[in-house]
Amino acid sequence: MKKSLEKQRHSLAHVLAKAILELNPNAEYAMGPAIENGFYYDFKNIDVSEKDFQEIEKKMKKIIEKDVPFKKKTLSKDEAKKIFKNQPFKLELLKDLDQKVSIYETGDFIDLCEGPHVKSTGDLNPESFKLDRTSGAYFKGSEKNEMLQRIYGLAFETEKDLNEYLENRKEAEKRDHRKIGKKQELFMFDEEVGQGLPLYLPKGAMLRKLLMDFAMETYLANGYEIVSTPHIANEDLWETSGHLKHYKKDMYGPLEVDGKKYRLKPMNCPFHVKMYNSKTRSYRELPKRWAEMGTVYRYEKSGELHGLTRPRAFTQDDAHIICRGDQLEEEVINALKITKYIYSTLGMENLIFKLSVRDPGKKEDYFGTDAEWEKAEKALEDALKSFGQDEYVRDEGEAAFYAPKIDIDAVDAMGRRWQLSTIQVDFNVTSRFKMTYINEKGDEETPFMIHRALLGSIERFLGVYIEHTGGEFPVWLAPVQAWIIPISEKQEEYAFEIKEKLRKNGIRVKVEGVNDTLSKAIRNGESQKIPYLLVVGDREKESGKVNVRFRGEKKGELKIEELIEEMDSS
Amino acid sequence: MKKSLEKQRHSLAHVLAKAILELNPNAEYAMGPAIENGFYYDFKNIDVSEKDFQEIEKKMKKIIEKDVPFKKKTLSKDEAKKIFKNQPFKLELLKDLDQKVSIYETGDFIDLCEGPHVKSTGDLNPESFKLDRTSGAYFKGSEKNEMLQRIYGLAFETEKDLNEYLENRKEAEKRDHRKIGKKQELFMFDEEVGQGLPLYLPKGAMLRKLLMDFAMETYLANGYEIVSTPHIANEDLWETSGHLKHYKKDMYGPLEVDGKKYRLKPMNCPFHVKMYNSKTRSYRELPKRWAEMGTVYRYEKSGELHGLTRPRAFTQDDAHIICRGDQLEEEVINALKITKYIYSTLGMENLIFKLSVRDPGKKEDYFGTDAEWEKAEKALEDALKSFGQDEYVRDEGEAAFYAPKIDIDAVDAMGRRWQLSTIQVDFNVTSRFKMTYINEKGDEETPFMIHRALLGSIERFLGVYIEHTGGEFPVWLAPVQAWIIPISEKQEEYAFEIKEKLRKNGIRVKVEGVNDTLSKAIRNGESQKIPYLLVVGDREKESGKVNVRFRGEKKGELKIEELIEEMDSS
Repeated sequence: MKKSLEKQRHSLAHVLAKAILELNPNAEYAMGPAIENGFYYDFKNIDVSEKDFQEIEKKMKKIIEKDVPFKKKTLSKDEAKKIFKNQPFKLELLKDLDQKVSIYETGDFIDLCEGPHVKSTGDLNPESFKLDRTSGAYFKGSEKNEMLQRIYGLAFETEKDLNEYLENRKEAEKRDHRKIGKKQELFMFDEEVGQGLPLYLPKGAMLRKLLMDFAMETYLANGYEIVSTPHIANEDLWETSGHLKHYKKDMYGPLEVDGKKYRLKPMNCPFHVKMYNSKTRSYRELPKRWAEMGTVYRYEKSGELHGLTRPRAFTQDDAHIICRGDQLEEEVINALKITKYIYSTLGMENLIFKLSVRDPGKKEDYFGTDAEWEKAEKALEDALKSFGQDEYVRDEGEAAFYAPKIDIDAVDAMGRRWQLSTIQVDFNVTSRFKMTYINEKGDEETPFMIHRALLGSIERFLGVYIEHTGGEFPVWLAPVQAWIIPISEKQEEYAFEIKEKLRKNGIRVKVEGVNDTLSKAIRNGESQKIPYLLVVGDREKESGKVNVRFRGEKKGELKIEELIEEMDSS
Repeated sequence: MKKSLEKQRHSLAHVLAKAILELNPNAEYAMGPAIENGFYYDFKNIDVSEKDFQEIEKKMKKIIEKDVPFKKKTLSKDEAKKIFKNQPFKLELLKDLDQKVSIYETGDFIDLCEGPHVKSTGDLNPESFKLDRTSGAYFKGSEKNEMLQRIYGLAFETEKDLNEYLENRKEAEKRDHRKIGKKQELFMFDEEVGQGLPLYLPKGAMLRKLLMDFAMETYLANGYEIVSTPHIANEDLWETSGHLKHYKKDMYGPLEVDGKKYRLKPMNCPFHVKMYNSKTRSYRELPKRWAEMGTVYRYEKSGELHGLTRPRAFTQDDAHIICRGDQLEEEVINALKITKYIYSTLGMENLIFKLSVRDPGKKEDYFGTDAEWEKAEKALEDALKSFGQDEYVRDEGEAAFYAPKIDIDAVDAMGRRWQLSTIQVDFNVTSRFKMTYINEKGDEETPFMIHRALLGSIERFLGVYIEHTGGEFPVWLAPVQAWIIPISEKQEEYAFEIKEKLRKNGIRVKVEGVNDTLSKAIRNGESQKIPYLLVVGDREKESGKVNVRFRGEKKGELKIEELIEEMDSS
């Protein structure tokens, strides 16, 4: 958040509290910070509903109009206690503070606060904020404390920004992938099957298959090889890998076979390592690039589950690149290139690159030698630069304990950021599993290993993508690309003839609407976001054509061959 | 087994026992039946190794030469006890018999036996049998009884049949899919991962993917839709489905999530049912044909595990067809057609069809009404006939408790039968899960459900197929279709150019053998069963051609375009 915007939001929180107190002098006020997209303030002894927002906003605007200055004062804790003698939450907050505390006065409203704030309420834009909603909230976020009422506000620099945010949010609600998933019959969940376990209905399963096929074909074309491994493994393996030590809380409970405990896999890496270690490897064989559409199972609290974006079972487009040190940079560049290609093909051009490196002050917290870290961090940094990505965020201390990484966020049509891709260098697993190769001199050496998942989780990506596109998928990804709609039963046979012709040309097509009126069938097709609606009446039947509508646009009559060509190129 | 052949094999078991007793009068003899491919006899007080086989066979041949008649006698149990007073196993066997027993005399050798036998040892062919091996075996197969020594013999009608069997067996040993899997680096197992859990190395994973893609494309082209479901489900689901009651011993132990027990799925059906039941269905929607490459987990005793043909994790090319009664026959015919198409495309033309129906004498053992059974059995039988498959085995009493089925065996290149495909009609699951549809009159009706898996288990099929082909896969299925072998480093760049050209045309190709002599590289490629070996020297580099070898056959120089055309059509 920009500092100036943060100051405005924080100041608006004070203005909100001042307004509430003016309207309700008995109110007790607790805490009110700036947050993403706005601010909030927590109160006791108020009973505010959304109906009251207009009145409160009016009061806030008046305070802004009056141009009341924010005055900072530093004073002793005892002085502060006197000031807040009727405000028990402030007294409670004071307990955690040093002897010298600071307060802000805005007219007769005084808050215990470090600031900073705008100079005066007149600096605030009365048109770029809006109260949003209320909720219950425990004091200081702890269930042990009292429940207060929180009032949320939205605030941006300009009215335009505010309206844009509101529109995006409205759009995002409309595009909720769970709603679209239900409407288009893409996927479902079932309590008897279990929480967080998606079942893909035909259209969703086709969408998922097309996406995975596209990703896997891209990897194969870029020198990757496909591998496939089981969904469970003996606990011995998870001991060796360190997962039972570091990752247990994310893993499902054990199941027994022949007295031995097995676990559902939360990751695919140990299996790929096993395959690498199944024979002696030479420097000449490297890099190995092994890709798997691997379905993993990770425990999420039931309260945190959210459709496809946060399920308990998901399939990663996972790959491990095992390479020599001198190949590291090129392999990372290659992965970055593929990422860009995949996301731009999918129509998500806006990517944000983040380089997570070691905290140089806490080297002891990380696994591996200085030399390894320097090599790997430099490889990632050089790769970003060689790739032409000079703009990236460098996060010191954000590396995994075992290695540095590049994470990539995709920005969706509503401006929301989603971390999807990750490219990580790993020193931990290579040494834990004693991976080696014979170098040019005939000596054993430890390879580097890159974990990379570019779509990340297919489920999460699909959830995001459904919202990004609003369920209007590119023609090549649309699970059903066309409906043929016969005007009456007389053209039904012709419709099925065309269907067969299109199907043989690899087009995913259905005959629909025979029992509906034409206008209803078209409305249905458009609401189901079927890209092509092909109406056939007597005239089309005679001329061997179809009347084409593409996403609401009338394209007129086309011969079947013309249609096939058009669809192939779209 | 043909009756006459069974008689011969059984008679040879007697001849074996007679020979053993002549060589070792202290031997005690227990049981000696005809079995598949031959016979065996169990003995105590002998110490026979394969070195002794020649001597025993000589003795057996002499008995045959002497033309000793088999004489059947019926006598009382007491008389029999006297005859076998020195043969404790025969006395033990007598205990289970009625008061009247029958014995067979062959000269001085007497056996407690129901027969039938050949008339005389002279009727046996001395050239068409062979002792095979020995093993330990418990008396009457029970661990509680004494361990005896079993001698196995092979026996066929003609010497030619015997030799053919021996050759096939030798070939089968050479083609053991576990050996080929290791040599070609197709798959592996790992103790730390767990028994019976295959890990597919790149070439095996590609082979598996190509096979599954072929199957799924075939299903989609035949009006199926793809679906996808999780690998685990709550025990509630397995209660409803009846699996926990009827199938528990084949299921893996439970695992806990949020205090609820989950199981790895042994079958995909309940998930498909859940999807069907997620909304009201109309008769117009039927049939639903839902296919899934579903990975299931089933417990097998560790002693019964055998490479890919008997693993603990396998992927079924599973589909469920939910249809009306009037659609049943057509749907079964459709499934039969697809089966034939798939197996003939894969080069396994020899299929054996088995219709398993209810035991009409034990109707009470089966689930469902008479009307349902009659309808379903007739549908299967009519389907076989309409399909033109008049030749099939009708097995009364072989139906599953919930429905009749058609099982299909494929016969491999060594003449071995493998049950792979199954097409089953199910009344159980439809009623257990209360599946319905609204019929034309607006009433609820229960649909029929067909389970069908045509390759069956991808793992098992691959195991069989690797042996059937000896690892020499059709070009379209070969995980690596071509190697480009540059004669020296000078042509390496050219080799990679060609590789890129071929790859872009969808050909799976590698550059290999740069560091080997040409003859060694060709030998390697042939031993790895790479269909096309493309040698490039200076001449080929200049003319823009490659020197082609196809499975050991020299095809001379071809332009790249010619090669692509040739490979596309093979």
